[in-house]
Amino acid sequence: MNYPNGIKKRENKIIYETNYSNRGMVLENELNISNEYYKAIDKAYIFKKPTPIKITKVNYPSRNKAVITEGYFTTPSTTDYNGLYKGKYIDFEAKETKSKTSFALSNIHEHQIEHLKNIDKHKGIAFIIVRFSYHNKTFLLMAKDLIKYIITEERKSIPLSYFEKNAYEIKENYTPRLDYLKIIDQIIGGTEYEWKKRHKKEK
Amino acid sequence: MNYPNGIKKRENKIIYETNYSNRGMVLENELNISNEYYKAIDKAYIFKKPTPIKITKVNYPSRNKAVITEGYFTTPSTTDYNGLYKGKYIDFEAKETKSKTSFALSNIHEHQIEHLKNIDKHKGIAFIIVRFSYHNKTFLLMAKDLIKYIITEERKSIPLSYFEKNAYEIKENYTPRLDYLKIIDQIIGGTEYEWKKRHKKEK
Repeated sequence: MNYPNGIKKRENKIIYETNYSNRGMVLENELNISNEYYKAIDKAYIFKKPTPIKITKVNYPSRNKAVITEGYFTTPSTTDYNGLYKGKYIDFEAKETKSKTSFALSNIHEHQIEHLKNIDKHKGIAFIIVRFSYHNKTFLLMAKDLIKYIITEERKSIPLSYFEKNAYEIKENYTPRLDYLKIIDQIIGGTEYEWKKRHKKEK
Repeated sequence: MNYPNGIKKRENKIIYETNYSNRGMVLENELNISNEYYKAIDKAYIFKKPTPIKITKVNYPSRNKAVITEGYFTTPSTTDYNGLYKGKYIDFEAKETKSKTSFALSNIHEHQIEHLKNIDKHKGIAFIIVRFSYHNKTFLLMAKDLIKYIITEERKSIPLSYFEKNAYEIKENYTPRLDYLKIIDQIIGGTEYEWKKRHKKEK
């Protein structure tokens, strides 16, 4: 059973957290702070999309307030983050896992994988950021490599070793906390020309 | 008083529409259909962001359902649409007005203007699409020209004549209904090189 972000079940009671996120809380905060930093120094403009919600009832109690009185968390059809870096489209999903050995693919919805595929197809930079909180290791895995894994492997989880071999580790930093654009720089080779060449070759 | 999308006040009762949007309903539908078409023919990948909502109460009535029992529509900090076209970042807001003569700037929130500025600064393609439903005319106004207007003019609305002079009219079509990428092609000059040259010159 999947709980939407921010929902923790404790003895049949829901505790709702304002900055809603469950296991992704710490990673999400670090990414938000890093993105604010990137924005402040004009390096990149990357932002978080709103959580998709299906509204079923709305009430109108006072003159200028509409209150949603019934709504549901829906399966996200896109990813959490997107934005611009060096004129390029950046798009990613961030997830944290408590597992010591693997990252369950059920963490990423089919629609999100489809979304990352589309971003990649249209020459955006698509990836996932996965943190193994037990090991305190954070990886950036390109969507191409995620999709390759899904196609070729039958397992419903990606072992840590796959990340160690195929993903880029994001080392923790002071400012910004998670300098993941440093890795994007490596990937795009620093220049647009090389990125294009690489992209062309891979296609 | 502004009502959030999808909320129509009728004698103090709220009628909620599933595909929620108020005056933007028709335009929004046409854009969604056009975007689906672009996606289907692999021309572009442009999608709608979820409506931002602040959730204040969540209930947990059954084993696998979390129900939002209180939430509010919040001021959008970004635009409704973004995506990728020819490897470029596309970002826009779409609005419909019933006015015969002008488009009230109150339709676009300050945060959204800030957002469009940021997209433009980081070399994305930022614009608004405005429909004057009375005249059945739809315009694409580049964020640069929107911002220039806001800075130089004291009026709190943009007259139709400004659109006629400074925006591009999107003529209605059969497939797709609103071929706004045709205009983007004109703007970027069809080739990345020319777009870059233009962007550099303008900076």
